Amino acid sequence: MAFITRFTPQTIILRAIRRGKTPFKQSVFCLPQPLSMTRVLRSQISLASHREHSGTTLSDHNSYSARTHTCGELRSEHIGQVVTLYGWIQYQRQNQFIILRDFDGLTQVILQQNESTEQMKKTLCDLPLESVVKVTGKVIKRPLGQENMEMPTGEIEVVVQEVDVLNKCKRLPFEIKDFVKKTEALRLQYRYLDMRSTQMQYNLRLRSSMVMKMREFLCNKHGFVDVETPTLFKRTPGGAKEFVVPSRESGKFYTLPQSPQQFKQLLMVAGFDRYFQVARCYRDEGSKPDRQPEFTQIDIEMSFVDQQGIQRLIEGLVQYSWPKDKGIISIPFPTMTYAEAMDSYGVDKPDTRFGMKIIDLQDCFRDTNIKFIKDALIGLNGSVRGICVREGLEYLKSKDFTYLQENIKMDFNQEVSVVFLKLDGSWKSPLNKHLTEDQREKICQVMLAKPGDVLILAAGKHEITCAALGKLRLQCADLLESKGMAVRNPNTFHFLWVLDFPLFLPKDEDPSQLESAHHPFTAPHPQDSHLIYIDPGKVRSQHYDLVLNGCEIGGGSIRIHNAEMQKYILQTILNEDIKLLSHLIEALDCGAPPHGGIALGLDRLISIIVGSSSIRDVIAFPKSFRGHCLMSNAPDCISKEDLKRYHINVAWSNVKKDNGMGGHLSPPICKAQSCKKMT
Amino acid sequence: MAFITRFTPQTIILRAIRRGKTPFKQSVFCLPQPLSMTRVLRSQISLASHREHSGTTLSDHNSYSARTHTCGELRSEHIGQVVTLYGWIQYQRQNQFIILRDFDGLTQVILQQNESTEQMKKTLCDLPLESVVKVTGKVIKRPLGQENMEMPTGEIEVVVQEVDVLNKCKRLPFEIKDFVKKTEALRLQYRYLDMRSTQMQYNLRLRSSMVMKMREFLCNKHGFVDVETPTLFKRTPGGAKEFVVPSRESGKFYTLPQSPQQFKQLLMVAGFDRYFQVARCYRDEGSKPDRQPEFTQIDIEMSFVDQQGIQRLIEGLVQYSWPKDKGIISIPFPTMTYAEAMDSYGVDKPDTRFGMKIIDLQDCFRDTNIKFIKDALIGLNGSVRGICVREGLEYLKSKDFTYLQENIKMDFNQEVSVVFLKLDGSWKSPLNKHLTEDQREKICQVMLAKPGDVLILAAGKHEITCAALGKLRLQCADLLESKGMAVRNPNTFHFLWVLDFPLFLPKDEDPSQLESAHHPFTAPHPQDSHLIYIDPGKVRSQHYDLVLNGCEIGGGSIRIHNAEMQKYILQTILNEDIKLLSHLIEALDCGAPPHGGIALGLDRLISIIVGSSSIRDVIAFPKSFRGHCLMSNAPDCISKEDLKRYHINVAWSNVKKDNGMGGHLSPPICKAQSCKKMT
Repeated sequence: MAFITRFTPQTIILRAIRRGKTPFKQSVFCLPQPLSMTRVLRSQISLASHREHSGTTLSDHNSYSARTHTCGELRSEHIGQVVTLYGWIQYQRQNQFIILRDFDGLTQVILQQNESTEQMKKTLCDLPLESVVKVTGKVIKRPLGQENMEMPTGEIEVVVQEVDVLNKCKRLPFEIKDFVKKTEALRLQYRYLDMRSTQMQYNLRLRSSMVMKMREFLCNKHGFVDVETPTLFKRTPGGAKEFVVPSRESGKFYTLPQSPQQFKQLLMVAGFDRYFQVARCYRDEGSKPDRQPEFTQIDIEMSFVDQQGIQRLIEGLVQYSWPKDKGIISIPFPTMTYAEAMDSYGVDKPDTRFGMKIIDLQDCFRDTNIKFIKDALIGLNGSVRGICVREGLEYLKSKDFTYLQENIKMDFNQEVSVVFLKLDGSWKSPLNKHLTEDQREKICQVMLAKPGDVLILAAGKHEITCAALGKLRLQCADLLESKGMAVRNPNTFHFLWVLDFPLFLPKDEDPSQLESAHHPFTAPHPQDSHLIYIDPGKVRSQHYDLVLNGCEIGGGSIRIHNAEMQKYILQTILNEDIKLLSHLIEALDCGAPPHGGIALGLDRLISIIVGSSSIRDVIAFPKSFRGHCLMSNAPDCISKEDLKRYHINVAWSNVKKDNGMGGHLSPPICKAQSCKKMT
Repeated sequence: MAFITRFTPQTIILRAIRRGKTPFKQSVFCLPQPLSMTRVLRSQISLASHREHSGTTLSDHNSYSARTHTCGELRSEHIGQVVTLYGWIQYQRQNQFIILRDFDGLTQVILQQNESTEQMKKTLCDLPLESVVKVTGKVIKRPLGQENMEMPTGEIEVVVQEVDVLNKCKRLPFEIKDFVKKTEALRLQYRYLDMRSTQMQYNLRLRSSMVMKMREFLCNKHGFVDVETPTLFKRTPGGAKEFVVPSRESGKFYTLPQSPQQFKQLLMVAGFDRYFQVARCYRDEGSKPDRQPEFTQIDIEMSFVDQQGIQRLIEGLVQYSWPKDKGIISIPFPTMTYAEAMDSYGVDKPDTRFGMKIIDLQDCFRDTNIKFIKDALIGLNGSVRGICVREGLEYLKSKDFTYLQENIKMDFNQEVSVVFLKLDGSWKSPLNKHLTEDQREKICQVMLAKPGDVLILAAGKHEITCAALGKLRLQCADLLESKGMAVRNPNTFHFLWVLDFPLFLPKDEDPSQLESAHHPFTAPHPQDSHLIYIDPGKVRSQHYDLVLNGCEIGGGSIRIHNAEMQKYILQTILNEDIKLLSHLIEALDCGAPPHGGIALGLDRLISIIVGSSSIRDVIAFPKSFRGHCLMSNAPDCISKEDLKRYHINVAWSNVKKDNGMGGHLSPPICKAQSCKKMT
């Protein structure tokens, strides 16, 4: 058999290059595309390391099944054994080699070249790729020099003795190859095929095993009780984003809750002491990119705990469940106050993987004659601040800064001034002429700036200046990375607690009114409790956010456990109808323990860990950004009987409203085929 | 201190009896009610055994909290330590003894009688029961003879050094004592108080730990992947019980799925190999007793598995997760075919904890002259059968049987004949005169009947006869138990697999049409596949039900993985619109592996294990049988803005329909106070 061409990624790449072909193109051997092979191998390795992480190396993947091994399992110690494998045909070559794939890896299966195998050969080799077969055969050692050491099963192959075709693949809208690029719409439409990719298998398996580790930590190590709370509930005050579910009683609706907030607090009143739930939550935000109408949070609540207690708990939880192949997480996580985050990063969820912090330049401009700075500093709450873009001169062009300046002007109505620190030490900036040598030096000193850097300065109202510079900071990082500078290490994970948020914020639509910065159940900071009744706008809260790489991945608080305070805040400060929450307020009067909790956004956390830009890549069946399931065509029209059962009529509002016919118009022709029959 | 009366359940019961009081009444000592105390102690023991079961003895219940111990934790080895406890005041006695309670147990706290503790005494002893306190104090040994060996912490008490009142209980709609009977409506309204009961704590903690063990078994031991599937989906064919959720697109609705059936199958097509999920499911059945609009199932699917594989998996799962304090479960579970179950028990979910099987009496009546039996046996599919109620003569009265006969007549239109086997060997029965001595003897022989038993005989169409006798069998068992006979051991758990169900059943409304006995994705029995195209009514399926003590607690099947067969069954046999399922059929053509699965009804399983008659007792926040949350008043009215956002109007149908105004009437006055403002 030595004359038969066997493939290893190396030989195939070499052969392809020798023929003058790029390794990406289909070779005359039909199979395999060498780079894809390397990729598959690489991903096999990562799946293997994932299995090790998740503790599933001990788990039996062949129990209760007729297979003896998975396709990723056979090694040289199995040589001589007769094995039964089930899998998908990944490659077929020379009417003799079949690569069988399952979730665990690839195994090379070979057909012996003799008369007795003719029928089998015909059966197997005529099969389209992605057909499903059962193969029984003997494990043999690959001939010397033809082992593939990059492939976990690369030392062996299986000589077929028996083949069962379990399902012939008849239809493939795209090739099941990791390197084949697909539009996201196509991926979502054929999600069941998209999920065959190594990356999606890795993402969802990592999600499963990480959540399992979290459960072990909470339930087995720390006595938390997993309690399921209802998702058919009722409107909460301010719950404008809650989906409604009509009931069979006319005019009565359930709502799908945005979180189990009330239930977790009531469970503390009920004496459960420690609650957690991997909770499905719902939020109807219409069409927002990278939001999902349903999402999952790790929902936690504890009695007799303070803010530090919850922080330590979550640090322990994250460390315990952290995937081994993603490095080590050190705890405790650093903390930052809300004020500090806003001052230094212009945002309440700072990405601390890189510097470029916002620097206060008030001292440098104390006696300035530059009008816009002077005006800003005279005004109420004015400030002048800047960021220093290291090596900006080399990486970014003037037009990049012009683009940034225009953007910031549009978003924040904030002017910024750019200073190029030329390599000869001179300044290129409109401000140049207004500054003395000393002033320029002081600015550079304060900002730790060197020739080759670019400074971006802004003056104005403190909050806006910081917010604008905060956004510029992130945009500069993106720009620099797009030009090849390594600003943020994609393999590092910077956790950060942000603390001491304000309890209330002025309402956007009426700044004389206050609204909860987070939710009305958040307890005030113990040092500020007395201010509730005097100057509520100044009260800091016991709210905490957990930030990872600049994304908010969790938030929680110590809750109000005193009915009087809760009533006062709802009624007097927030002007809410407390009847909607009477059950909660009553509960606080029945011996409610002090309690607090947190919720971690699981989708976002996993997406950051696996390095995906979208949470859709860590959700098995996500909706499109418009909230559609492209696979099944949900949401869809429903029948008249359904409408009747729930006592509702459709107000067809996609016909112009000003046609004088009110809301009740005849339905437009429904494009979904299924609708025609049903509606 | 020896003069101070200390309580042990024994002394208090004795003292109460000595005073001529029943132990149930309040004693002059105010506290404690002795039986409640015994009950609390007993439940403490069961909570402790539960902790041991769940493996949480290793878990740290004091981590991340300022307490040093729980209220159930202190033993004599802690004597001399200064401890901090948090808990609820369960009892207070003689201005000196406080019983502090938390989820883990009770601890006796004592106030030393001296001047320095006067203030503390005032603080503590004025507190209403169920107030929440923090107590720091020293653990001491109880005086000799005053230990309470039935109480896990009964060897020690804690001498108070410092007290913090964390929350004063101001309101209690009912006493938090296990023995205080409350109506279910009250329990549901104040669920957060109801859940403080030992039983509810036990139920929900057992649920949590049992599900955790299931996860360990599936995820860690057998490589299952926990995948979350969407609950905002679209109508499935025949899904008349699906709740609908209006979207922001006019006329387009999501539905809340009854199970993740399609998703689990698509995950197999996606190559996930082994999937599980503790899945929230939704079913709108209007007002049905002991059904919930949302419920939880352990949802499982596997590739490359057969029926036996799934059965063994579930047996392993149940055995692994079974609570230690509920005895040992032996596997494999017995099996029974559907036909056998219907023949011998008249139902597809036989309660095999007791006999009283349905006996075929055709041989005994072969040459009978009794008209109704003769007529039945001549007719198509006729049969004569009976059950033997052992010792019925002693336990049941004639009027009991008259009641049963009337009921069965009403439910099944089936006459049954009752034979009393008197102790002297004679028969009391209208049939007596039509039967020879030999015939009577033969009947007794076949039915293994003895004097003192009562026979119930029925003749007619086979299915109806069996169904009627099956129902009578259960009703007799209930009646006998209500009279004090031990028919079923409430502490035994009889699992049973029911197999070989028919694949299709005639439709109720049109028996010439077939419908799926379970769902249209169930694969036919391999021996019957050929009949699909010839005589589909005769095809058995690869469906299996898991029955526990006469309740169906799970069901599943091997699925159809062939697109052609799936299409044929949907289109030709079931007459369904396959467009609604086009994505699933397409998926089967893309290399779908053979697969099968099961779903276990978690609520029902847990309720049987804890011995509760209602699933509401194992759900933290259940709905009433009318689908209402009595605590929060869901479902509720919603605002006009909400209706507008979702393009719906309410058709007020609770006003008479025949008033000539069609469906659009003005809303009735909404009773919910919150409605008035919002609608």
